Parts: sequence; C-alpha cells; structure tokens
Amino acid sequence: MQGLSYLRNSFMGEIEKIKLRLRQFAEERDWDQFHSPKNLSMALSAEVAEIVEHFQWLTEEQSKQLSNEKLGEVETELADTLIYLIRLADKLDVDLLQAALSKIDVNEQKYPVDKAKGNAKKYTELGK
Amino acid sequence: MQGLSYLRNSFMGEIEKIKLRLRQFAEERDWDQFHSPKNLSMALSAEVAEIVEHFQWLTEEQSKQLSNEKLGEVETELADTLIYLIRLADKLDVDLLQAALSKIDVNEQKYPVDKAKGNAKKYTELGK
Amino acid sequence: MQGLSYLRNSFMGEIEKIKLRLRQFAEERDWDQFHSPKNLSMALSAEVAEIVEHFQWLTEEQSKQLSNEKLGEVETELADTLIYLIRLADKLDVDLLQAALSKIDVNEQKYPVDKAKGNAKKYTELGK
Amino acid sequence: MQGLSYLRNSFMGEIEKIKLRLRQFAEERDWDQFHSPKNLSMALSAEVAEIVEHFQWLTEEQSKQLSNEKLGEVETELADTLIYLIRLADKLDVDLLQAALSKIDVNEQKYPVDKAKGNAKKYTELGK
Repeated sequence: MQGLSYLRNSFMGEIEKIKLRLRQFAEERDWDQFHSPKNLSMALSAEVAEIVEHFQWLTEEQSKQLSNEKLGEVETELADTLIYLIRLADKLDVDLLQAALSKIDVNEQKYPVDKAKGNAKKYTELGK
Repeated sequence: MQGLSYLRNSFMGEIEKIKLRLRQFAEERDWDQFHSPKNLSMALSAEVAEIVEHFQWLTEEQSKQLSNEKLGEVETELADTLIYLIRLADKLDVDLLQAALSKIDVNEQKYPVDKAKGNAKKYTELGK
Repeated sequence: MQGLSYLRNSFMGEIEKIKLRLRQFAEERDWDQFHSPKNLSMALSAEVAEIVEHFQWLTEEQSKQLSNEKLGEVETELADTLIYLIRLADKLDVDLLQAALSKIDVNEQKYPVDKAKGNAKKYTELGK
Repeated sequence: MQGLSYLRNSFMGEIEKIKLRLRQFAEERDWDQFHSPKNLSMALSAEVAEIVEHFQWLTEEQSKQLSNEKLGEVETELADTLIYLIRLADKLDVDLLQAALSKIDVNEQKYPVDKAKGNAKKYTELGK
C-alpha cells in the first residue's frame, strides 16, 4: 500500500503536488469557506500588484538587475502568486498545466514567427 | 543521443518544460527585447485582472458555478497568468517551484492550525 | 494681482486644483523623471490593489460595514488612487473631468434603463 | 425653488456632481444590488488594468507619446476609473476630495523636499 502511494506520488506532477498540499492546508484551517473563486481572484490580483509595486519606479534596465535583497522579496511574491493561482484553478476544477500547454499551442498559431518577429503588436493587429 | 535527451526530458519538471518552451517562443520572435521584468509584471497583472473581471459582478456562490462557456474563458486567463508568471520568474532567474514550496513551509509556520482555524486574519493579526 | 489670482482660484475646479498641487509637489522633489505614464499606471494599479486587499476575504455584506479603523485605511487608499489618477491624466494631458462626464453620457446610451434594469450584463450581451 | 436648486448646483463640487449622477444612474437601473464595496473594488481594479495593458510593451518614452487613437482609448479607461472610484467612495460614505487633500498634506510631511529630492525611495527608506 505504502509502496503504491509512493509510486503514484513519484509520477505526480509538481503542480498537482502543490495543489494537494494547498488543499490540505486549507482544510486543516477550515479556510475553504473563504476560498470562493471570486475571493481567490482578488487575492491573486493583490499578490501580483505587490510584484508590480517593486518595479514601478525602476527603469526596464534596473528591473533586470535587482539587488539580492529586492530579488528575495520579489521571489516571495512570485511564490504567493503561484500558490493562489494553483488554488484558484483547483477550486474551478481546471487542469492548469494542460491549460497552459494548450494556450502555448494557440499562441504559436496566433503569432507566426514571420509576422510577429520583432514587434509587440497584439495578434489582432498583426499584418496591419 | 536521442535517448539521453528523452531521458532528461522525462525527468524534467513541468514548470521547467514550460519555461524552456516559452524561452524558445520568445527567441524565435525576437521578443526578449520586450520581456523586461518590469514589462512582464505589467502583462501578468493585466491577465489577472481579466480573471477578476469575470467574477466582479458575481456572488461568491455564482463564482463556484460558472457555465461551461464562462469556465472556458476563465481557463484561458488562468493559462495566460501561468505563462507570464513562469516567464517572469525565468527572466529573474528565480526557481518558481522551489520558491512556492518554501513559501508553503513558511505559511505553515505563520498560520498554526490552532490559531488560524476558521478565521481569515492576516498572520500579523493572529492572537489579537 | 493677489485679488485676480484669488478670483481665478475660486472658479477653478477641484480636480484642477489637485492637479496643480501635485504638479508642484513633483517639481519640488524632482520626481517628474519617475512620472512617465507607464510608471504612473503601475503605481495606480498597485494602489487599487491595496483597496482590493482590504475586501478580499470579506463577504459583500461585510464590505458594507467596515469598522472605523478599516474604513480609515481604505479611505487613505482611495485618496492615493485619486492622486495617481489625476497625476496620470495630467501627464497625458487628458481632461479627466470632461472624460468622465462624456463617459457617463455614453453609458446612458449603452445601458438603456428598460434593457439594463436589474441585470449586470455587459452592454455587448444586453438583449441576449 | 428652481432658482435655489440652480444656486446650490453651481456651488456644488465636480466630484459631488458626478457622485449624484452615478447614484441616479444606478438607481434607475436597479444596480445598487451589484454595487457592494467589494464588487466595486474589483471593477475598479479591472479598469485600471486596462490602462496598464496599453502601456505594458511600451518604453517609458513611448508612453509619453501616444498616438491620438491610443490616447483616446486610454482617456476612456481613465474616465471609467474615476467613475468607479467615485462610486466606491460614495458607497463607503467617504469624502473623496477631502481624503485626497488630507493625503497630499501627509505626503508633504512624509517626503520633505531636502530628503526626497531626485530619488524615488519609499518614505520608510528615506535617509537610508
């Protein structure tokens, strides 16, 4: 039994593992009551804004050369963002990994190399 | 050769795989010039806001029961969010998976079950 | 002279007055160099996220009944939001007041009372 | 009567006038049910993100030189932001104008010209 669980775990994806750990975390604290998709979308956006706040007065060049202290702070916000994102996807029963892979496929169609090369136009504006 | 590459690939994490695919996507389109951490943080926040927009006029209950059409739209925004998040972490040379796991460890310390159970207080307000 | 300045001031709109005060504030501190529209849009979004953060775990009902302490905190974030919004509009040379009045006119056309009454559909979905 | 109403109106502030117009707009459409502070904070953040989206791939310099077409689009988003901000303040019974004026006073104390000149540090980091 132990062995089977170990086997399954070793084949389980990273995002799946985090998802299950977050699920347990919330259950133990009786936090599911707060974790409606609506609320989680707000928490997600608040975390992302903390990333934005780190960069708002920096030039693009400065944003590439953060001090170790700053980088550590941003790293924590990135982690929080992934945590809320996985939690939100779980609550909506969305396979986040599969969704991302499919979206990359779509983007490769939407932005063909020859048209998109070197410009940041939205796909609806390509060719204009 | 083929075999070794296959082997490495099969042990590579999901986030790592997406990271490499996004890196190639950007290189082929010469988009690295646009992908400063500052700019990517903005793109990330704009994607998350599209998730928020889907939920803004819904009650919490309604946000748990999306129609298939709505859910499909939200799924795409979740995918875009993960894509920009992985890309931003890559540009900052942050190990996103490790950062998330460490942050969950921290959260387990910050929010002990006996104090956090059933309330949504920030850890700085626990015990008040 | 004094008198004329006083007269002009008394007829000047509120938003105009704040705009001029913020302009002087930035000039005295040599902060115009940081106040590109791009940067101000980021600062604006970070402020709004602080409002969102106050509400993320509250029910809609609770959000209507903030404690005085919470309300004071939200009030400060609302103020910061207005400040950055006026500053951003100034930097873009947009007449914010006029833009808002025009947009309300547009909304009155887009959302006729008989169709919009009691539902939160986007105008593109009215009549569906 | 007419005359008194006219007189009062002519002394009423701009923000106050917009506030009353938005109140009537919502009442006529029976939209107060959707306008909890929680929901309005989400709508506000979604509007601001649409501003951010316009600037995300632009350099700071480019963000200062928008085409007329782009500027018109940004103007509409700025208007929507002011509208939701005034509406949210109204629902919380906050005097937005007074709050902004007080916050500017506070900022003048927090960021004295001699210390803040030419740097974008947060006030908690001034003097470091």
